[in-house]
Amino acid sequence: MKEFALHPKLEADTIDVATLDLSLVRLMNDRRFPWLILVPQRVDAVEIVDLEAEDRATLIEEIALVSNALRELFHARKLNVAAIGNLVPQLHVHVVARFESDDEWPKPVWGTAPEPYRFDELERRLASLRYRITPT
Amino acid sequence: MKEFALHPKLEADTIDVATLDLSLVRLMNDRRFPWLILVPQRVDAVEIVDLEAEDRATLIEEIALVSNALRELFHARKLNVAAIGNLVPQLHVHVVARFESDDEWPKPVWGTAPEPYRFDELERRLASLRYRITPT
Repeated sequence: MKEFALHPKLEADTIDVATLDLSLVRLMNDRRFPWLILVPQRVDAVEIVDLEAEDRATLIEEIALVSNALRELFHARKLNVAAIGNLVPQLHVHVVARFESDDEWPKPVWGTAPEPYRFDELERRLASLRYRITPT
Repeated sequence: MKEFALHPKLEADTIDVATLDLSLVRLMNDRRFPWLILVPQRVDAVEIVDLEAEDRATLIEEIALVSNALRELFHARKLNVAAIGNLVPQLHVHVVARFESDDEWPKPVWGTAPEPYRFDELERRLASLRYRITPT
């Protein structure tokens, strides 16, 4: 039986935050936005509709959980939630906190050039996210 | 009590396909992509996390329903599913069928200029979608 493994592109672009029942929660290494990615730990899932109904129900609750965390921690003006995957086929769901003052507002963030965190700010961001996002 | 009403911008940009338990299903008037929009009929919902848990569970199943329809009808290479709403605050979820041959592949479709359907192709597209997407 094949085991779930994070896609190498997601591994390279993101940092571990938490492991929930269904999904890995990863932080996109882009200091421009508080940007989390949920990756359901299901081998070969590409689309949301590829998941079993029970997993889909879990996924939307995990989306709600990280949405609440981003709203509370960063007082986001808007959340952008998306499963796109045109380039990285492994199913993953972006949850991005947006602000009227951010670099791309009101445009979507996908396809823009990321700006990596500095080490100290990354440590601080991870600490607050890991404190707030804990398995249920 | 306030009644649900479709946001005027969504009303202007999309055409009625079906009414599901939770969501209106609307076709984006953009012939470049088979592009549906789900609008949960809940007053003042802006984010997925604003919905009650029961409505969230329904929403993800309605996303699955229209995803299956788009996959079967158009043999989509990839589905793009997103709740963005930086410009139109009323909660709405895009479900877009993507193809390697489409005008924007592999970039996201949001923020690009729509190309309206011609009348005859719109009628045909609506007929096939309305036949396939029926309330459960």
